[in-house]
Formats: sequence, C-alpha cells, structure tokens
Amino acid sequence: MKARVHVTLKSGVLDPQGKAIEHALTQLGFEGVDSVRAGKVIDLELSDTDEASARERVDAMCQQLLANTVIETYSIELSA
Amino acid sequence: MKARVHVTLKSGVLDPQGKAIEHALTQLGFEGVDSVRAGKVIDLELSDTDEASARERVDAMCQQLLANTVIETYSIELSA
Repeated sequence: MKARVHVTLKSGVLDPQGKAIEHALTQLGFEGVDSVRAGKVIDLELSDTDEASARERVDAMCQQLLANTVIETYSIELSA
Repeated sequence: MKARVHVTLKSGVLDPQGKAIEHALTQLGFEGVDSVRAGKVIDLELSDTDEASARERVDAMCQQLLANTVIETYSIELSA
C-alpha cells in the first residue's frame, strides 16, 4: 500500500519560503499570484494491506516524526 | 483559481532526506516502511479564471523557478 503525506504550515503561521517564492514569481513577471504556501510531501510504501490499520500507522508516524503539530498540519492519502 | 504543485525527485536520483526519514521511522519501531521519498508541495492562488491558461502559466513557473528539471519532476493540480 502506498501513502502520500502532505505536511503544511498551519494558516496563520508565517511562511518565509512561500513569501520568497511569491516574490521571485512576481520578479519573473508572473502577475496575479497570491497566497503562496510551501510544504512537504512524503511518499511511503507500506507493507500493510488493510487501509484502516495503514492510516492509523501513518497517523502515528506524522505525530511522532513527520510533522511538527505545533505549527504544521498533515493530511494522509492512501492508495493500493 | 487554486493550484497545487508537487515537486519530487526523479526516480533514480538519490534522496538522502527520504532515506533519513525511513531510517528514523525504523528506529521508532515502524516496520515494513519502504521507498520513502521526500518532496515539496507548493500551493498558489492565481487570478486566472481559465483552467488551460492557468495550467500553462503554472507550468512556466515550474520550469523557470519551482522545479529543477534536471533532477526533479513536477505535477500540477488545479481547482476552482
């Protein structure tokens, strides 16, 4: 089973990387680009075959390692 | 219109960040985790209303700034 985890900064948390990208895009001549936010995506392959247990395990991985839940949120997508 | 861009290392390109995550997960007791790959996700808000033109513009942003196409691939998702 494959899992894709998105880790993004909570709204309200300052995102200097996003701001830098937004500024660079404007400098390159791309107009009308707004609210740029940068995050991480982590792809994993799991030996689990049951979706519910896989989701539970990936959730534990996010809590313990992948995300800093003080300032970040995460979302989990599973596919066969 | 909102755009989400995934930038990931091409398969075959060494991913030390992914390897480090995989190692750390194993150390934490998560078994059966394999092929961990780390990438970036960039969320943008665009003033475009036409999907085709938005996709073309985001593609140009990826080529010029967001991705290093020598070692990275990117994918674009658009939503209203």
